[in-house]
Amino acid sequence: MHHAVLKKIGVIGPNKSGCSKELYDFGIELGKRLSSPGRIIVCGGLGGFMEAVCKGMKQSANTFFGQTIGILPDAVTDYANAYVDIPIATGMGIARNSIIINSSDIIIAAGGGAGTLSELAFAWQQKKTVLCVTQFEGWANELAGKNIDDRGNGLFVPVNTIDEILKYLDNL
Amino acid sequence: MHHAVLKKIGVIGPNKSGCSKELYDFGIELGKRLSSPGRIIVCGGLGGFMEAVCKGMKQSANTFFGQTIGILPDAVTDYANAYVDIPIATGMGIARNSIIINSSDIIIAAGGGAGTLSELAFAWQQKKTVLCVTQFEGWANELAGKNIDDRGNGLFVPVNTIDEILKYLDNL
Amino acid sequence: MHHAVLKKIGVIGPNKSGCSKELYDFGIELGKRLSSPGRIIVCGGLGGFMEAVCKGMKQSANTFFGQTIGILPDAVTDYANAYVDIPIATGMGIARNSIIINSSDIIIAAGGGAGTLSELAFAWQQKKTVLCVTQFEGWANELAGKNIDDRGNGLFVPVNTIDEILKYLDNL
Amino acid sequence: MHHAVLKKIGVIGPNKSGCSKELYDFGIELGKRLSSPGRIIVCGGLGGFMEAVCKGMKQSANTFFGQTIGILPDAVTDYANAYVDIPIATGMGIARNSIIINSSDIIIAAGGGAGTLSELAFAWQQKKTVLCVTQFEGWANELAGKNIDDRGNGLFVPVNTIDEILKYLDNL
Repeated sequence: MHHAVLKKIGVIGPNKSGCSKELYDFGIELGKRLSSPGRIIVCGGLGGFMEAVCKGMKQSANTFFGQTIGILPDAVTDYANAYVDIPIATGMGIARNSIIINSSDIIIAAGGGAGTLSELAFAWQQKKTVLCVTQFEGWANELAGKNIDDRGNGLFVPVNTIDEILKYLDNL
Repeated sequence: MHHAVLKKIGVIGPNKSGCSKELYDFGIELGKRLSSPGRIIVCGGLGGFMEAVCKGMKQSANTFFGQTIGILPDAVTDYANAYVDIPIATGMGIARNSIIINSSDIIIAAGGGAGTLSELAFAWQQKKTVLCVTQFEGWANELAGKNIDDRGNGLFVPVNTIDEILKYLDNL
Repeated sequence: MHHAVLKKIGVIGPNKSGCSKELYDFGIELGKRLSSPGRIIVCGGLGGFMEAVCKGMKQSANTFFGQTIGILPDAVTDYANAYVDIPIATGMGIARNSIIINSSDIIIAAGGGAGTLSELAFAWQQKKTVLCVTQFEGWANELAGKNIDDRGNGLFVPVNTIDEILKYLDNL
Repeated sequence: MHHAVLKKIGVIGPNKSGCSKELYDFGIELGKRLSSPGRIIVCGGLGGFMEAVCKGMKQSANTFFGQTIGILPDAVTDYANAYVDIPIATGMGIARNSIIINSSDIIIAAGGGAGTLSELAFAWQQKKTVLCVTQFEGWANELAGKNIDDRGNGLFVPVNTIDEILKYLDNL
C-alpha cells in the first residue's frame, strides 16, 4: 500500500509508571479495534499505553507486519516493547517526541503526564488533529476541546469511547 | 568565569506573534535587571519575549559578551534576534526546545502558547525549576504552582514581579 | 514477525544528483534480490540509490508492506520517494543520518558523496558492519576494507556483487 | 559585539583517546594564538583536541568570557571540559556534530577519527571552509586539499602551521 493512502495514526499517552490498569486495558481494546489494512500506528515504542495499543493491534485477527512503529528515545532498539514491528532508534532522548508528531496524520491521546503534554504541544504547533480521550485523568482529558493558543482552533477533539474514535477515523 | 559557577537561566515565552506590548516591555526590564556578572540566559533566539529579554540585557550598564545564547530552530544563524551574542544553529526545528531546557540551570517563563508549553513539559521531565510569571495570560500563568504529573512536586514556582524573580535567584 | 528476528538492513548511497544510471539499475536489482520475509531496509527515503533499492523491493514477487522505511530530513513526509512504505519525518535535516545508522543491524553502501560519508563515519562510531560495494566510484568503494580509526577493525567489508552481499547476509 | 561581526570558528579533532601529546600541545598553542576580541570557538566540548584549544584560549592574555562554546552530546552539561565557557546540552549523541558545523563560520580540523570525519562530511554538505592541519595523522590531513564530492570545490584548505591558520583568518 502506498504511504499516501495509508493512514498513520500517532498514539500518545503515559509510559508504564503513569498507566493505570484501566488505561492499559483500554489501550489493548483500542489496538484490536483500530487494526485494519489501511492503518498503522506511530508511537514512542516504550511501555504503558504505547505498549497496550501495539499489543492489541498484534493480537487482532487482521494484524499485519509494519502496523506498529516505535520512535525510541535511545540510540539502540533494545528497549522497544515486544509488540513494536519497526523500532526506530533516534538517540535524541525526549526530543524524539517531535518525530512521532511529524510522522503522524492524526493522533489519539489518552491519559498522559509531562511527556504526553509535550507531544500535545508539538501537535498543536504542527496543526495536527488530536482525538483526546476524556475517560481517563491526564493531559488528554485536560485539554480535550480546548485551544492551546491562537494559532489553531478545534484541533483537540474530545472523544469518550473507542466507537467515537473509529467513527471519526472512518469519516476522514 | 567557570561554567559551574555561572548561572545559566533559561528564558521561555512567546515569539513575536504571541507577545503583547506589555509582555515585551516586561521582558526588556527583566533583561536589564537580570544582568549581572554571574548570569547568562539561554533562549530560543527569535523574536517576542526572547528578543525583549536579550535586548534588556544588552542595554544594561554591566552587560558583557556571552550573556545571551540563542538556540535556533534553523540550520543557519541568520534569523537570530539582534541581541543574541551566541547563536547556535541546531537545524532541529521545534525539537530544539529540549536543548534550551537541558542547557539551563533554572528557567523563567512568561506568557506563552504551544511552543512555551512544550518547553514547560520538557522542564518538568528534566526536573528543572521554572519561575512562572503570573501577571500575563498564557501557559506560564496557567501552570504556575501546579504539578504536571506525579514525577515532580512544586517545580513551577509562581512569581508575580521582577523583584520576586531576583529575590529567588539571589537566594539560590 | 518480531523485530528481534527481523533483519533491519541500512541502505546508504547517493541522492538523485550523485546517482549514475548504472548505480540506479544496480539498486533496483539489489532491492529485488534482497526482498525476503525476514528483511526490511532502512534508508534516507529520498531519490537516487535509496529510491532504486526501495523500488526493486516493491517490484519483487514476495514484497510485503513495511519492507521500506524512509528516515526523512524534513518535518513532513511529502518528499519521500514513491516506494517508501513507512516515512518517518524527523525534521532534523542532515543530522537524521545518525538515525538511519542507529536503526540498522547491518548496512549496505554503494557509491556515495558527503552524505554517505557522514553515514559511514557514524556506522564506524556505532560499530556496525557495512558491506561496501566496490564496483562504483564513491566513498563506499574508497573505504572498503579500510579502518577509519583505531576504535574498530574490519567493519567495512568489501563486496563486489549482489551475490556476495546475499551470501554475507545468509551467513549471519 | 554583534554576532554578525564576530567570527565563530569551529574546532574539530579527536577526543582524549585519539589525541597524541603532540596534537594536544599544538591545540593549546593554537588556542592561545587564536584568542582575539573578534573570535570565539565552537567545539564538541569534550576532551582531547577540543579541550586543548579551549585551554589555550582561556590561558591567553586577552581571554574573555564566552570565547569557548561546547556543543555536548549529553542531555546534561556535567561532562564539558573545564575550559568551556558555555556548555550546550543537546541530548542528541553523535548527531550533535551537525550543530557544531551549522553554528560555525569557518572550521579548523586537526588529526581526527570517525567523529571528525562525520564533521568534515557535514561541513562539505553545508559548504563551509575547513582549514585542514596537515602535520598530524588523521582525517584532517587525509582530506586536506581534496574534494569529497562534486557539490563543492576547494573547501578543505591545507594548512601546515598556526601561522598559516592565522594568516588565512586575518585575510577573511
